[in-house]
Amino acid sequence: MDRRVLRTRNDVLRAAIQVLFDEGLGSVTHQRVADVAGYSKATLYAHWPSPDGLLVDAFTSFVDVHHHTPAGDLRSDLVQELCTFRTAMLERRVDRALAVLVDLTATVPELIAVREHLVTEGERVIRGLLAPSLAGNELEAATLMLCGAIVHSALTHGQIPSEELIETSVDLVLRGIGWTESPR
Amino acid sequence: MDRRVLRTRNDVLRAAIQVLFDEGLGSVTHQRVADVAGYSKATLYAHWPSPDGLLVDAFTSFVDVHHHTPAGDLRSDLVQELCTFRTAMLERRVDRALAVLVDLTATVPELIAVREHLVTEGERVIRGLLAPSLAGNELEAATLMLCGAIVHSALTHGQIPSEELIETSVDLVLRGIGWTESPR
Repeated sequence: MDRRVLRTRNDVLRAAIQVLFDEGLGSVTHQRVADVAGYSKATLYAHWPSPDGLLVDAFTSFVDVHHHTPAGDLRSDLVQELCTFRTAMLERRVDRALAVLVDLTATVPELIAVREHLVTEGERVIRGLLAPSLAGNELEAATLMLCGAIVHSALTHGQIPSEELIETSVDLVLRGIGWTESPR
Repeated sequence: MDRRVLRTRNDVLRAAIQVLFDEGLGSVTHQRVADVAGYSKATLYAHWPSPDGLLVDAFTSFVDVHHHTPAGDLRSDLVQELCTFRTAMLERRVDRALAVLVDLTATVPELIAVREHLVTEGERVIRGLLAPSLAGNELEAATLMLCGAIVHSALTHGQIPSEELIETSVDLVLRGIGWTESPR
């Protein structure tokens, strides 16, 4: 793809996400997104014949999950990875993206794969950190609870959890799995 | 309110929820809801001059949270309360209601109070069961993790958790808070 086409695509996809987050799905029309992006409606139709295709591409380009690089201390690595997730919600509106995706997948099945990729990639580091200590349903439950505490708080409480609350959650789970800090 | 008016209201609100869940927010128009409910558009406008008012009333009538009645064994009460939540997702589409609410509150602020009521009432029994053993951030973290595991699984994984997974989650939290079964 040449550089000009790529820039057009990126501008339009960013505008589509902005319209979706700020104005809701009903506003994600070729006309409205073209206006916000500063391109003609014809340009949008040339790239994306259907609004669903535009949505799928917009989410796919938006999904760029950041992670903490594990440093070897389980407690601190879990806390920092979850705080990286917290920061993504605060700075990159990942909470809003999740909320929209969760609702949209019921009516736009093409988005299910995007949501699944976001969730799998989002949970990857937490799951990897816990995997040496847990397996099967216990690994699943611990991952669901740690990620779930943040997702549930941000999405249904409408409140991104504090770092203290994240630390307390990690400590509860670590006590639950019988983890004890290695001696220094 | 006389009985006939009440029946009309209930029919219309049920139809509004059905259209919202099945077809998405864009379809919740007076015309479409009137068609599904079998009433005239004029009747709907007489009761709800605005679509947002119709949505708020539909969710308010939908929110009727069922609970397990605690029987005195903490582990079993937590598991059964969470399984009641699970059943509500399976049978009454509470997962879909949450997904829609979470997204809609960003653009329909009148729904924030409805979401907050649903969450507070939904978490009430879990919080009450844990309150004698925990306080402050620990109570908050344990409640968020248990409810969050189910909400996160159902909403972002698109999969209502199994009873085994609920039991494993409860056991992890109970070990984390140092709870031991009372002797029989």
